Amino acid sequence: MQPSRIPPIITLITDFGFVDHYVGTMKGVLLSRCPDARLIDISHEIPAFSIHAGAYAIDQAAPYFPPGTVHVVVVDPGVGTERKAILVEALEQYFIAPDNGVLSLILARDQNAKGYEITNRDLWLPSPSSTFHGRDVFAPVAAALACGAARPRNVGSFASQIVRLAGFSAQQSESGLWRGAVLSIDRFGNIITNFKASELPILESSEFALRVKDREITAFRKTFGDAPAGLCFAYFGSSGYLEIGANQRNAAADLGIKVGEAVTLRVTIG
Amino acid sequence: MQPSRIPPIITLITDFGFVDHYVGTMKGVLLSRCPDARLIDISHEIPAFSIHAGAYAIDQAAPYFPPGTVHVVVVDPGVGTERKAILVEALEQYFIAPDNGVLSLILARDQNAKGYEITNRDLWLPSPSSTFHGRDVFAPVAAALACGAARPRNVGSFASQIVRLAGFSAQQSESGLWRGAVLSIDRFGNIITNFKASELPILESSEFALRVKDREITAFRKTFGDAPAGLCFAYFGSSGYLEIGANQRNAAADLGIKVGEAVTLRVTIG
Amino acid sequence: MQPSRIPPIITLITDFGFVDHYVGTMKGVLLSRCPDARLIDISHEIPAFSIHAGAYAIDQAAPYFPPGTVHVVVVDPGVGTERKAILVEALEQYFIAPDNGVLSLILARDQNAKGYEITNRDLWLPSPSSTFHGRDVFAPVAAALACGAARPRNVGSFASQIVRLAGFSAQQSESGLWRGAVLSIDRFGNIITNFKASELPILESSEFALRVKDREITAFRKTFGDAPAGLCFAYFGSSGYLEIGANQRNAAADLGIKVGEAVTLRVTIG
Repeated sequence: MQPSRIPPIITLITDFGFVDHYVGTMKGVLLSRCPDARLIDISHEIPAFSIHAGAYAIDQAAPYFPPGTVHVVVVDPGVGTERKAILVEALEQYFIAPDNGVLSLILARDQNAKGYEITNRDLWLPSPSSTFHGRDVFAPVAAALACGAARPRNVGSFASQIVRLAGFSAQQSESGLWRGAVLSIDRFGNIITNFKASELPILESSEFALRVKDREITAFRKTFGDAPAGLCFAYFGSSGYLEIGANQRNAAADLGIKVGEAVTLRVTIG
Repeated sequence: MQPSRIPPIITLITDFGFVDHYVGTMKGVLLSRCPDARLIDISHEIPAFSIHAGAYAIDQAAPYFPPGTVHVVVVDPGVGTERKAILVEALEQYFIAPDNGVLSLILARDQNAKGYEITNRDLWLPSPSSTFHGRDVFAPVAAALACGAARPRNVGSFASQIVRLAGFSAQQSESGLWRGAVLSIDRFGNIITNFKASELPILESSEFALRVKDREITAFRKTFGDAPAGLCFAYFGSSGYLEIGANQRNAAADLGIKVGEAVTLRVTIG
Repeated sequence: MQPSRIPPIITLITDFGFVDHYVGTMKGVLLSRCPDARLIDISHEIPAFSIHAGAYAIDQAAPYFPPGTVHVVVVDPGVGTERKAILVEALEQYFIAPDNGVLSLILARDQNAKGYEITNRDLWLPSPSSTFHGRDVFAPVAAALACGAARPRNVGSFASQIVRLAGFSAQQSESGLWRGAVLSIDRFGNIITNFKASELPILESSEFALRVKDREITAFRKTFGDAPAGLCFAYFGSSGYLEIGANQRNAAADLGIKVGEAVTLRVTIG
């Protein structure tokens, strides 16, 4: 350890929760093998097995971390089966995850992303279990990368294919009509659609109808406090996507909306 | 970065929860701009929009942190509206928050507290969103302060007025009668009133009646294990306030008490 | 502080939850007294007062931490009563906890474990409360040990007896029959029994019946993805114990099983 270098950062996203010891145990492995690593919890409350939710969380957080950060994303319903483990180099950062699509949005952000299949067992814990690769595979590989004990090419060979999930992108099917889906619903009940703000007209000065289930939203506001109580409105959220919210109310509960629900947006006068 | 200096401490209190990426994203901003900061989670499970709960949490935790600590408190129902963002210097520490009363108890602890309105956009992220000032305003300002890149006077001008919430102080309306309220209920169901221990007689050797809703507590104990099962009793808690608890039971659930409920204390023989 | 030494690690396991300020307040004490300590959350969602769950969490996590780590385990229904506070040296690490059995499994791992009763009030916060020893006793003692300001013998005298809980060990009552119990149920609904993998025959090639309540499990799989949907099966888990799971289903909910439930295992052909 050179005292003057900036300590490496390792972030964690899992669906392990904080009730069990799993996250803490992974941290033990990380610190045993990379003693000066900074361990940063992004989320451990990803809904169990929700690859989509994990994909969205890492997509939102990663761009705000410095180059060289090592992200470990463990939402892994296929642990112990033939599913691969991968390392992706993208955005000048590293992403370690099961190859199940959880890095789909990261791959979409960087056309020059490179993938490696994690096969070099010398970097793993000895006698890895079949059910806890977070501890036995992902953590020790992350520690090796973070501390400079391994380079990406040392973890395994180049991955020719990486699983990418569908359903993250909205489609503009004709002029003025977009078809998409609910990407995420946050703690406050804000509904994040997959309509990218950068690909839409400026809704503030448009006439539009945003439909989800049998509900129609036609109001646009800049932020929550600009809306009267009870009104559900559209806004361009911090996510970079079009969102639906309500001032100090849970819009998703009010509207009865769940993740994955279809959404359409029709802009009549832009 | 000078390797031998003590790394700065930045604490976080939010109502963001751990399901979403929001807390992790703020940490990315903090570490990008202050690489050696120690990031300490105080609580992210403040009930959504509960300024009172946030105020109580920072009040309880801050006195135990070392001088120079930077606290970021984001319970912010008014994000994106005209509400101000403030920096308060108090207790030899820094407090960054929306100006909505969440620092009321900190201000009450230090008569020499100084406040600044956070207006210097050079310290913020470029193109801040209207809905996530935790990431775009509070985190980068905290990083600048923690790392010494900004002094308090650099974040903006002196704040002549800071919002203070009522309802935190109990009143002694006549000799022997105090009127107050429930300040907090913790995970165990212990009820924290706003009767300060330092302003009350020694209840251990007094006759008293503590009334909340239609219930009356007349027993005093030093700690939980001193009480028989099922008895609700008063005690001077670690909070510095008079609390109501029950041995290995949830007193708040047993009594049907919620935060904000009125409480009276009558001491008959002190 | 010597900049080039590896910073000490202090881990935390509590039943305090993340809603309240308690964990954050303990961290303030730890950093005030040991500024370069690395603070690692293992779990703060131990069910309130569940000494067994705390014992299991520290048992699973500790072996993965480096020598010298200081673990603070606060599940403490007897706080403020005559129950002792202890420091245990085991596995080349330190464990600080109330003397209520929460270190039972750690003591079972190391025959040479040494215990000390924490009695030296010079190391505590002044005027400790009766209800929050995590802040007033355990945290400052942990900080002193982690930073080298105290050696184990400085915290108090040798503890001749330490509380050990029963119910953690399975018994082989006759050839081929084991009697045990459910040790833990994790977030995913996986049921961890107290049958140690190292003490059982290889079940993969055996005929066996695992009974819990009125249900019988006779299938063995290596991992979740090897099982068809809906099948509850036995597997040797990452815990080192025999576990019961179901592919992407909550086995505990499906079977109606709770922690503590009796389990028998009969191996007919090994």
